[in-house]
Order: sequence, then structure tokens, then C-alpha cells
Amino acid sequence: MLAGSVRLCRRSSSAVCHILPTRTPYRKPSPLSCSGHASVVRPLQTRSRTTMAPSQVNKTAHPFERADLEGVLTRRFFICPSFEIYNGVAGLFDLGPPGSALQANIIDAWRKHFIIEEEMLEIETTALTLSEVLKTSGHVDKFTDWKCDDVKTGQIFRADHLVEAVLESRLAGDRAARGEAEKVKTAEELEAEVKSKKKKVKSTAVKLDDSVVADYESVLAQIDNYTGEQLGELITKYNIKSPETGNDLTKPVEFNLMFDTLIGPTGYMKGYLRPETAQGHFVNFNRLLEFNNAKVPFASAQIGKSFRNEIAPRQGLLRVREFTMAEIEHFVDPHDKSHARFSEVKDQKLSLLPKDVQSAGKSDLTEMTIGDAVGKGIVNNETLGYFLVRVYLFMIKIGIDPARMRFRQHMANEMAHYAADCWDLEIHSSYGWIECVGCADRSAYDLTKHAARTSTKMVVRVPLPEPVEVDEIRASFDRKKMGPVFKKDAKIIEDTVAAYDDARLECVEQELAKDGKTKIEAADGKTYELTSDLISITRQKTKQFTRDFVPNVIEPSFGIGRILYSLLEHSYWARAEDSQRAVMSFPPLIAPVKVLIVPLSNNDAFKPLIRQVQSKLRAHGIASRIDDSGASIGKRYARNDELGTPFGCTIDFASVKNNTMTLRERDSTSQRIGSIDEVVAVVNDLCDARATWAQACERLPEFSGDQDV
Amino acid sequence: MLAGSVRLCRRSSSAVCHILPTRTPYRKPSPLSCSGHASVVRPLQTRSRTTMAPSQVNKTAHPFERADLEGVLTRRFFICPSFEIYNGVAGLFDLGPPGSALQANIIDAWRKHFIIEEEMLEIETTALTLSEVLKTSGHVDKFTDWKCDDVKTGQIFRADHLVEAVLESRLAGDRAARGEAEKVKTAEELEAEVKSKKKKVKSTAVKLDDSVVADYESVLAQIDNYTGEQLGELITKYNIKSPETGNDLTKPVEFNLMFDTLIGPTGYMKGYLRPETAQGHFVNFNRLLEFNNAKVPFASAQIGKSFRNEIAPRQGLLRVREFTMAEIEHFVDPHDKSHARFSEVKDQKLSLLPKDVQSAGKSDLTEMTIGDAVGKGIVNNETLGYFLVRVYLFMIKIGIDPARMRFRQHMANEMAHYAADCWDLEIHSSYGWIECVGCADRSAYDLTKHAARTSTKMVVRVPLPEPVEVDEIRASFDRKKMGPVFKKDAKIIEDTVAAYDDARLECVEQELAKDGKTKIEAADGKTYELTSDLISITRQKTKQFTRDFVPNVIEPSFGIGRILYSLLEHSYWARAEDSQRAVMSFPPLIAPVKVLIVPLSNNDAFKPLIRQVQSKLRAHGIASRIDDSGASIGKRYARNDELGTPFGCTIDFASVKNNTMTLRERDSTSQRIGSIDEVVAVVNDLCDARATWAQACERLPEFSGDQDV
Repeated sequence: MLAGSVRLCRRSSSAVCHILPTRTPYRKPSPLSCSGHASVVRPLQTRSRTTMAPSQVNKTAHPFERADLEGVLTRRFFICPSFEIYNGVAGLFDLGPPGSALQANIIDAWRKHFIIEEEMLEIETTALTLSEVLKTSGHVDKFTDWKCDDVKTGQIFRADHLVEAVLESRLAGDRAARGEAEKVKTAEELEAEVKSKKKKVKSTAVKLDDSVVADYESVLAQIDNYTGEQLGELITKYNIKSPETGNDLTKPVEFNLMFDTLIGPTGYMKGYLRPETAQGHFVNFNRLLEFNNAKVPFASAQIGKSFRNEIAPRQGLLRVREFTMAEIEHFVDPHDKSHARFSEVKDQKLSLLPKDVQSAGKSDLTEMTIGDAVGKGIVNNETLGYFLVRVYLFMIKIGIDPARMRFRQHMANEMAHYAADCWDLEIHSSYGWIECVGCADRSAYDLTKHAARTSTKMVVRVPLPEPVEVDEIRASFDRKKMGPVFKKDAKIIEDTVAAYDDARLECVEQELAKDGKTKIEAADGKTYELTSDLISITRQKTKQFTRDFVPNVIEPSFGIGRILYSLLEHSYWARAEDSQRAVMSFPPLIAPVKVLIVPLSNNDAFKPLIRQVQSKLRAHGIASRIDDSGASIGKRYARNDELGTPFGCTIDFASVKNNTMTLRERDSTSQRIGSIDEVVAVVNDLCDARATWAQACERLPEFSGDQDV
Repeated sequence: MLAGSVRLCRRSSSAVCHILPTRTPYRKPSPLSCSGHASVVRPLQTRSRTTMAPSQVNKTAHPFERADLEGVLTRRFFICPSFEIYNGVAGLFDLGPPGSALQANIIDAWRKHFIIEEEMLEIETTALTLSEVLKTSGHVDKFTDWKCDDVKTGQIFRADHLVEAVLESRLAGDRAARGEAEKVKTAEELEAEVKSKKKKVKSTAVKLDDSVVADYESVLAQIDNYTGEQLGELITKYNIKSPETGNDLTKPVEFNLMFDTLIGPTGYMKGYLRPETAQGHFVNFNRLLEFNNAKVPFASAQIGKSFRNEIAPRQGLLRVREFTMAEIEHFVDPHDKSHARFSEVKDQKLSLLPKDVQSAGKSDLTEMTIGDAVGKGIVNNETLGYFLVRVYLFMIKIGIDPARMRFRQHMANEMAHYAADCWDLEIHSSYGWIECVGCADRSAYDLTKHAARTSTKMVVRVPLPEPVEVDEIRASFDRKKMGPVFKKDAKIIEDTVAAYDDARLECVEQELAKDGKTKIEAADGKTYELTSDLISITRQKTKQFTRDFVPNVIEPSFGIGRILYSLLEHSYWARAEDSQRAVMSFPPLIAPVKVLIVPLSNNDAFKPLIRQVQSKLRAHGIASRIDDSGASIGKRYARNDELGTPFGCTIDFASVKNNTMTLRERDSTSQRIGSIDEVVAVVNDLCDARATWAQACERLPEFSGDQDV
């Protein structure tokens, strides 16, 4: 959430392809690739799951080529650059009908899997955010990246990306000079090569000293952790220049990633577009707690747009300036982070990449049940562990390849100082491992900050099993003296101190004892000095029947656009017999359209049946489309394979005569036949995941027709 | 859509209550009212529809008091001011769990009613918009309101609202001085009074001359049509001062209502937050057309946030700075605006307020079938008429009172010059008649503008039934001369002219004939002068087999927040026996939660049954909540009446013994009993509107238990 710590994909920033052309004229729509270089990355593993008929389908007959996928995505209007006819803007994309439906279905599945299943409190807060809120959260000061400029052309670079791209390109040049055979390249090396190509940092075959290679590799391994000053030193040390011009670069300066604007006509009220939805939960904590009958644990959830003014957005859908997030803030007692449903998930195995493995410079995955991971203290607590599994199960449900997911723990230097633990769900695609969900235990940081800034108590009170005697520490003011000294400010000072916790009051006590005075930073932003005659700290034994605490927050934060893009890559393949016959194998649950209705021809005899089938499907809430164009049935199905429509129903003269229709399954292209009602019933079960295709085949006999399908 | 023409609620700007406190401290949450003045407006008519058991329910036993409703809305966290603990910002609101669920259900119903039922192409375009796009659409220059300032305090007023509030307050003072009895006040007069109170423009009992009263009334009737200069003249003429200070006011100046920001790090790329979603459809027109196999008619649809920097937002949810819109852009052949499904709706009666009635200074509604209205030319065409009915039916479906809806036609001076016709669906609430949906026939305006600006052809080509011989008009350039004169600009000039339609080419022809030269405003924004030796217009007879046209756009544009607020008012009432027992009578379709599960006590014996019931409901997709708090069953039901939960199921010892449970209906409080499975089946039918409560009562016998419910 915070700059430099847990914001989405700080870590995965190393993939650098400038995927979308910002200056593509409309008339010659080109695919999403910027340079026409196809990225040839063989899947790490073949898909281990086959939702459909495995024996008939070979999804890996052709190697994955990103350019081919991008061709399908733009041609079928899954996605396009925003304001394309105005030449577009980097980092802004529109979703066309299939992209929009796919995203809506993912969000719908998310809402059911998390909000409804877990009875979370859904909220909707504004994207326009008062600057003070983001000042308190730390974003105004720290939500920044480092940029540097070409001193002559003014071209702007993100400093860490630039250093990375230049060093990677030099390493690639070194490998070329050493004559390393292309054939033995690993997937990771291919990725690196693709990246350097896309960044257009020319890689020339120059051999480097072994020590230089080691140096570069060590820098690259830590590229996310350098300060601006350190990046500046690297630029000088390695003589890095502006790649296209060879000009010098300015020293890196901080650039805040929030879009700002002015609210209202006065010109004084500054606002930002939120860079995350989380703060909207935190400022509403007291109302949420009250809505939940003052009890924890509970979770709030929000799905909405966030905005980040990236310096130089690349990587297509993976790094954009406006994006949909889904965030959960789960509030728990800091003394009890167990989870009531942990036992339901404890045997689920996950691929983990713990921090100590990374510190040792390795990336070997550990396959482990979440029960063991929590038991051994690898994952901090049950609640965090529960969410890791729920996140994993959600991804499986929507069609992400389980073999291409891993949970990577943040290393100590990546994580904010207050965070207890943080795990990213990373999904592998042709861009490498990309953070798609961040799962952080953020402790009580945000609530404490907002409470202090606004003098608002944000605590949960629970009854103690039995009363305890405590040493109560309390501040008292000499009101007769406070008034004359501070006048109207006296109240805000008292309110501020009233919101202090015991630890803070102890600090005040020590300062008064030492210096006879203390400084109070009040909720109005001003600092007041109070002397011992104005404020005193007293202690007395009292019996407490309740315990007050600021809840801790466990936050799973989803980047929907990144999940969507990963899913598009994992779903895409081409038929063995023809690399041009692309298929998007979305699970029926999230496919934009579930059924394509294909009449044999435009004959009027088919029209009543088409209406009948469509209305029966609609009664089950199943989205269908009719294709009554003149194209052959095979061609119509092929077009819809590209859109990921899982089922097709053909209506022909036999349908008119016998009230039957065929049912075609997209991946296997196998066809079955049955009465219209039975086919609709089977489709309904398939769409609700109550039946597999194998089971459907038991209910519907194979179709062996004589028509061209 | 455009400033001053059809943007949402330009017209309804006359209601002025400052509904939300911008400076309410959190600890004492006050209702949404600003001043504690309750607005007592009796409903114009009692609800003509009773979805539930009419005989037992008296929904009008207590007069509507807005303050009471607002108390429920904040207390139950339907809504609250954004950043409330930071004292909030006028015009920004958050939705809590019930408000968010209600909105999600309205949007879901909208998607089914419009997008799925009509097979519209849903898209999602960015809120961040390149400034050039909004320059072309006219928003950069014309999307403004007039503001004026208190010369000493700098307080800022929206000029038309201020003139209106002051004159209304003087008229109210006049009525008081004339001793007009309160009892004979009409609903409209009460509204006016409420408004003036809320605006805090003191109304003192001063009698005015009859001629002055007539003058004021005439000004108020036209308040939406004055220019800034005219508003300035009114301020001088009527000696209008800053209401609270009595200071002079500055002359009105234009204030653009769009939030601006800078995209990227350069500081040069200006962007705005979109003030409507429509432009995102228009710039994507060619891709949409291609997706629809190059055929019209078709419609695109988008649901998303828009942003307007209102000068002084008041009226709670009705005038806000960030809001959800749902917009449809239906593209049709300008020569054929018939609609294939018009016959299905032609007999539907609507309450119309045509423009000629308004011009005559009246507001009598005409009840008429849409078939007649289109037939008589009152509504311009079938497609527009079809959408008016669809909009009306949607509102009925979600629970808007049909007796409090009307369609008001824009008067000639309200409508943009290019618009063919425009009707607003207005919903009546305690704020008066408020525009909630604008239905405009926007002709070919937007597509033509974007096409010209970007030199992009945005046309539909249809085959002609038989070829026709036409006088083709065409521009030709002397390329040998163009090059030396315009150099690299020659191409953009030619491209611009190539996108001209016949009418425009005729203008060029006439100018060349008259002056020997013409001016071309090219797509690069520059103007070029071309003399007759560079460009010539030729005509020749050719046979045409196809016809190209720029489609017209019919746009129903929904303000979801306004619909939500109207629905909250229409749904709210209090039980006859106790004005504090509030009920929100949402239809089951859109109620946030459908079923409250109420165990008699916390006894462990009930737990398996609760889980069983909840899982059975979930299998039908029915949202339920459990209330196992210690409160009495009656109290638990009362709390959920406020949340609008339509059904309640009690689980008691009889349930454990007989596997039965009771079913309580919210509005009537009547209770029935049946087996758990039967009750779940009945609830499922009720939620899907397949059964009424009367039918449910036939299936489940009345409950005459002995427990306190």
C-alpha cells in the first residue's frame, strides 16, 4: 500500500516491455506489441489442469507468441488503447465488449468468493480524496518513484528501470560475445532478452570481465531497493547514458505518483485521485465497527478504480495509470490472529518462496501445506494463511494455471517497518513473475495514524474474562492555566492527548520528569509546548473490566487488470492443425458469453427455435449470442473460439423436426446431441460447474451428423 | 451531455438544500440534514402500488419527514460524508454496506434490463481523459457554470442558484406579510419554503408590489436560461447582496466544472476527469461498429464514475462531485429511427410534459400511450419512444413510485442546436421534480466532431436496394503546387477534406466560386487558406451501390445516485403505531439482504439448522444474514426493517423438532410457517418475482405461535 513498501508490483517492475503503441494511427490497427518482436517463451510447464476433454486437446502444439495473443486481443476488441483515434496515452486502456464482460465476470466471481462467502461488509468510497487523508497515510510524502531526464532532449526515464534495462542489455551483449548457444537458454534468460529488446536498449556483443558480470548481477538482484541517491551513483559509476541519444542524465529526483486536482472553486482545497482504495476503509472504521455490532474480527471489501501517474508505463495491462482494484481489510484482535475457518484450509498445499530462501540468493519454491507453513512460523498467522489459500482457490476458479502461481514473501528490507508479514501472489506470464495480489499484515499502522491526526478514538472494546487490576496512567490538565495560555487551542490539545495510548503517555511522563516540559503535535497539525504546571501524568490502581485495542489489519489487495491479463495469457492457445486458429479457454464461469447459437442458415424456419433457445437460456441467466451471418458453421465457431465462448448450439432442420440441437464444446470441438430442453439443462449445469464435460457426455450421446460443422 | 444543454440536472438545479454538514465532528454523528429543519412534504399521492399485503399496511400514517429518513440513512450506514473524521468535503459521499449493496443491485438490474435484454455492447473506458477529446466535444469551452464572489469575504456562490434563492425568499416573505394561511399551501409552495429555509437566506415578512411579484416569478420561471451577463444584470437590478454579510458581489464569471490534472511526468499532457462516460463510446465507435459486424442499429453501454466540480454542491446525493452513471449510446440510421420492438411497448401509457405545455407556462401532465405520442409527433421517433418506455419499466421494477414519475421534454432554448429531441425522466421527491435520466436524440453531432478533428472516417456503409445515379461531389488537389506551399502539412489538409461530407464540400465550392479561396480547419487544429489553384471541387454522375452515413445517436443517460436517493425516499415510511419504527420497503429484487435468519436464542441446538438454512439460500444465490444477538426477536426484525430486509425466518425449538420455520414479510409483518425446504422455495420465488406475497400465503399456512415475535 505504501510507497516503496507494499504497493502493487514495486517488485515486479523489472519487466519492461513497452507493450502498447502510443502513436498508432487508427487506420492500421496494429497488435498491442510495440515493436513486432514476438516474445517466444515456452510455458514453464504444460497446463496441469484440463477442464475439458484432455485426450483430444493439445494446447501446447504451438509455442506461445505474445504478438499472436495481442493480435487476437485488439482484433476482437478485448482491449484497445484509450482515445486511439487521438493517438492514445501510454498507460490508459479501454475494455471492449468481451474484455468488459470478462472483467465483470471476474469481479462477480470475486464478490461471491470473498464478500458473500465470508460475509464481508462491502463499501464504496470516493476516488477523489482530500489531501490531508493521504498526508496522514504517508502517500503525499512517500508514494514516489525516481525519475531522471536526458539533459538535452528532456526525455524522462524511471531511474531504476533505466539502470536495470542498460545493465541487462550489457549482460545480454556479453552472453552474445561469449557465443552462448541460444538453444540452452532458460526461460528466465529468454525473458531478460525479450525485456531488453522491447526497451530498445541496443545490445551489442561486447564481452565483459567476469567481475563486471558479477557486479551487474548483484545490482540487478537488488534493483528495487536503491534510494534515488544510490541510483544516481550507479548511473555515474557504470557510465549510463540516455539510451537513444547517448546524452548525459540528470540526477534522479522524486516524482509523486498521485494525480492531483483542486476540489471546488476556491483553488485552495487540494485533492488526489486515490492510489489505492484502502484509505477509504480506514477513515470509515468506526462506522464499520458499529455496523458489525462493535465486534471483531470482520472484514470490509471494496472494488473500484485507483489511479497512479506512472513515469513511463510499459507492460500493457500490467502497469497502467487507471486500474480496478479489489481490496479487503480484515480487522483482527492483535492478540488473537487465529481464524475460525482455518481448519477448512489447513491441508491445502501452496508453492511458497520464503524470504530466507531469497536472502540466500535462491528462488526455489517450497511446496507446503498452509497448516505446516503457519505451524512452522513461515507464514505469520492463521488469518494471513487462510487468505493465502482463499486467494489461491479464487485464482484456480477463474482459470489461472496453478503451475504458474507462487507466493513470494517480502524480504525484510522490502516491507514497511510496521508490517508483520507480507506475501505476494505472483503469476507467471511472458513478462515473468508478476505480483497480482499483495497479502499484508499491516498491524495497527493506518488506524493509529488516522486516529492521532483527527483526535478520533478508533478502538475495539472487549469484555475481559475476569476483571484485572491495572496501573492506570492518565493525563490531567490545569484548566485554569491552560485557558489563558492556549485560549481556543486548549481544547484541541486536550483532545489530542486524550487519544494517546499508554505508551505515548509514558513518553510524556518521562519528558516532563526530565525536562519539565513536553511537545504535543495536535490534530490541527501544530505543535504546542506544555510545561509541568499545565499537564501532569498520574498513575493509579484501577480495576478494568474491558480491554481496548486498535485492531490489526490483514489486507489482501487484488490488481484486477493484472489478473485479467495473466488469465488471457494462460487461456490462449492455438489448435495443433493451424497456428492461426486461436482459442481462449476461459472457464464457463467467467467466459464473456456462454453459448453461441448457430442456425444452419438464415431460413425463417429456424427463427422461432432460436428465440425459444435464447429465452430458455436467459431464464437460467446464461448469456448467449446468435450468429446468423452467412459464414460457414465451422468459421462461425472458430470466430467464437477466439472470444472464448465455451459452448455452441447448432439449429438445423433436424431441430425443427425433432426439437433437438447439437452441443459443441470449444476446447475439444466434440459435439453431442439431445432435446433442446436436455441440452439447455446440461449447459446450465456446466456453467454452474455442477457438471464436467465428461459428465455432460454421459447425458448426451455423441453427434455423428452429416452436415459440415 | 453538453454544458448548458442536456447535462444531468441543469434544469433541476432549483432545489437548494445544503443537505450534508461539511463540518460535523465524528463523535456526534448528526443526520444528513444541515439545519435540523425538517422538510414536511406530504407525498403528492399515496403509493398506488402495494407489492405486499395491502390491507394490513398503512404507509402514509405519518407525514414524510426528510430528517427522519436521513437519520436512518446515516445511523444504518447506507451513506455518510466521505472523510467524515476529517470533517468531510461537500459533494463527496461514501456508501456503507447497505447503500453499496443497494446500488450494486440497482446496477445489476440495470445490466439485465438493458444490456442483456437488448444485447448491448458493454464497454469500460477510462475516467482520465485526454484534454483534446473534451476540447472536441465542447466540454473544455462550454461545460461551465457562473460563479460570483462576496467582494469582502471571498465566499463563492453559483450565480443562478443565488438569484433564485434570494427571489424565492423575498416571495416567501411577501406571502407571510400577506398573511397567507399555511394550511392552504400546495406541495410546491411548501417545497419552495423548505428550499429557502435551507439556503439560510433569511425570509422576512415584507409585502411586495404585485408587479414585483410578477417580475420575480417570471425571472424564476426562466432561471436556467440566463447568460452570465444577464445574471449580473439581475443582481444589480434587484439589489442582490451576499446573503449572510450583505456585501456586494462580483460580476458572474464562468467556472469550468471539470477536474483537471496532468498525465505523466512532463507537465505538458493535460487531462480531465470525464464529466460523462459518453465520449468514451464515441471515440471507440469504429471498433464497436466492427464488433457488431458493421451493422446498425446497435447500442453500446457503460456503467462508471464521472466527476463534476460543482461550485457549491447541495441537495445531498442529488448534486455531487463524483457519481456513478449508466449511459447507453444507441446508433441508428438517421433515415430510419424505427425500432424493431416498438410494437411491444406502444400501448404503454406515460405521463408526459411536452414543451408546448411548458411554453404556455403550465405544468399539466398528459397521460398518453407512447404509440400515440410518437404518432402525433410529440415524441420525435420510435427509438426514442421505445427507450422512454424501457426507462419507465426499469424504474417500476426497482421500486420507484409510478405516480411520482414524469417525462419532461426539453424546451427549444434548453436543447442543444443539433439535438432532435430530448426528454428527461423526472422523479418527484422532497426536493421537487429531479431529472434522473436524460433521453436525448443527439443526431450525428459527436461522431462528426471527432471524425473531423482526427481525420478519421466514422461512417456506416449500407448496400442500396438498387443502385442510384448520383451527382458525386469531390475535392481534388493540385499536388505539385500543394507540396511547395504547405510542405509536410499538405497531407493533413488533404485528409481533413477527405473526411468532409457533401454539405461541407458544397460550402467549399461556394467559397471558391465567390472568393477564389477557402479556409480549412485541419485536424492539427490549425487553419489553412487554400486558393482555387490548389483545390477544386468537381461534380460528376456516378452510380452508387452503397450509401454511407454518420449514424445518429439516441442517448439514455442515467444518474444512478439520484435514482438511489429517490428510491430511498419512495421506500421509506413508518409504522402507524409508532413513527420511530421506520421501514424501507425495497422490492426483494434490489433489497441489500433478502432474508434475516433469527434464532430464538443463542442455544447451540439451533446452530446446525442456521447453517443448513443459510447454505440452502446461498445455493439459490439469495443473500442472507444471521442476527443471533441477544435482542428480542421483535427488536431484531425492527432493526432489519430499517435495512429493508424483506423476509425473516425464525428458528426455534419447533424447527429443531419438526424441521419447520416461520417466514415473516417485512411490510405486513404477517407470518407464515412451513418446512424449511418449502419456505426456502417460496422465498426463492418471491425474490425472483415469480410469486407475490399473496401467492406465498396460499402455499404456507398462517403462523399462530405462542412465542414473542
